[in-house]
Amino acid sequence: MRVADCESDAVALTREWRSVGNTIGFVPTMGALHEGHLSLVREARTRCGKVVVSIFVNPAQFGPGEDLTRYPRMIEADCGLLASEGVDLVFAPTPDTVYPTGFSTFVEVTGLTAGLCGASRPGHFRGVTTVCCALFNIIGPDIAVFGEKDFQQLAVIRRMTRDLRLRPEIVQCPIVRETDGLAMSSRNAYLSPEEREQAAFIYRGLTAVTRAAGKGETDLKALKAVFVSVLSRAPMLTLSYFEAVDPDSLEPAENLDRTVRLLAAVVAGSTRLIDNISLEPPHPSRRTGC
Amino acid sequence: MRVADCESDAVALTREWRSVGNTIGFVPTMGALHEGHLSLVREARTRCGKVVVSIFVNPAQFGPGEDLTRYPRMIEADCGLLASEGVDLVFAPTPDTVYPTGFSTFVEVTGLTAGLCGASRPGHFRGVTTVCCALFNIIGPDIAVFGEKDFQQLAVIRRMTRDLRLRPEIVQCPIVRETDGLAMSSRNAYLSPEEREQAAFIYRGLTAVTRAAGKGETDLKALKAVFVSVLSRAPMLTLSYFEAVDPDSLEPAENLDRTVRLLAAVVAGSTRLIDNISLEPPHPSRRTGC
Repeated sequence: MRVADCESDAVALTREWRSVGNTIGFVPTMGALHEGHLSLVREARTRCGKVVVSIFVNPAQFGPGEDLTRYPRMIEADCGLLASEGVDLVFAPTPDTVYPTGFSTFVEVTGLTAGLCGASRPGHFRGVTTVCCALFNIIGPDIAVFGEKDFQQLAVIRRMTRDLRLRPEIVQCPIVRETDGLAMSSRNAYLSPEEREQAAFIYRGLTAVTRAAGKGETDLKALKAVFVSVLSRAPMLTLSYFEAVDPDSLEPAENLDRTVRLLAAVVAGSTRLIDNISLEPPHPSRRTGC
Repeated sequence: MRVADCESDAVALTREWRSVGNTIGFVPTMGALHEGHLSLVREARTRCGKVVVSIFVNPAQFGPGEDLTRYPRMIEADCGLLASEGVDLVFAPTPDTVYPTGFSTFVEVTGLTAGLCGASRPGHFRGVTTVCCALFNIIGPDIAVFGEKDFQQLAVIRRMTRDLRLRPEIVQCPIVRETDGLAMSSRNAYLSPEEREQAAFIYRGLTAVTRAAGKGETDLKALKAVFVSVLSRAPMLTLSYFEAVDPDSLEPAENLDRTVRLLAAVVAGSTRLIDNISLEPPHPSRRTGC
């Protein structure tokens, strides 16, 4: 496994790989890797001849007062994990490499970024799309693999990639969970033991909603009340949002006649946690004849 | 020469060319081609195995009340000219092709776009950078050729290309002028005969400034007064701006100890005209020893 902090090394290596017919799978990360990240790496490993993982804690996607400085950094441990997964290249640039002097270009997806996490994290998705656009162009991957945990991010990246005709196909992988159901996240490390225990109620709430829907409840307000009720058993968690949305447009769903995505964000102390689950329509969609 | 309005045709053809080792030179245009455009095509023709010209009147770079609907469209004549220049592919997509349903991604260069034409055309450069980013990714050129007439655009495209690591090298070509010095522009067709005659005073003003500088005038305010004085002989022209700027950063020049670019914009009736000229320092730069 090669580790490069130099952009021209990453460009040269990936160009060479492409020139001899290799496909390249790319997993952009901020490091502090867990099984969720590794599941993305394995997906890329299965699909492509070469696998590149970037580790870059991207300042542009952190707002003022967010956790840029305390975000966990453990590059040596991360590289150990990635070597075990058969990764070919770890690209770990510095901020000065990604954003050279005078950097002043931003990629922004409108609409999709306005609500949900975008409402409370202004500029966050602009930081994500800008860095992913640059990284995609540096690495030149055939696929880029993202986890469903950051579901809004996934939709935003997919839209950017389509609109700007970026090179990779965007591949999405299911959320990986702890044994109590908490979605794996590098930020779980911030939680106190009590917060960590209560954080399991997020997924419990989501599964309670899918059970209620499975029993025939189709009213979205009633389903939200189910989630809120479960979450109320975890007093250290404050609801930021719970929304049922169209999985592509992220527009609020009006009813359950098609697959929707239930997205939740809660705050535990100073830690923001997000999770989501797919909710299938209760019956096969009724279709009117042509 | 192939003419494609279908994106997948343009993608397939240029991919095939690259796969057999051709270099691709790209000239993005809005059509209504004149000798200025053709000089760009010839530059691309000299440098690359294959030359692609796009013709696309880009709605996203026209503001409300600007001349989107009346912008001259003459695709058959344009294609005739391009065939004569040995162009390999004309890509002439519709707006629906470039901006498919749900398009919501924008590329924006900050700073460089704030002043000069950006001050009076909000959103213009965002439209330019967004479409150029998409076109670069569709065509995959080795070089993209732009004229110096739209000098701010050139600086903005160069910055975007560097920041986002887009594929092409940006090549710039000198302004091509009518016999009386007026910079060629598709918008010159809007001018009444009287406006057209007076429009020559823009370049006369710029050359008067370079003559004054050549005679030792170094005060930028005095040089601007020279330009304004010449322009006053053309009462149908209203000055929009005259600025001396650094050619890369477009920051206002404070003095003439290095090469600066003099940029001018005037309005004749409802037509906006721009021009520019390079101004070298009057003496070899004095350098202090190390």
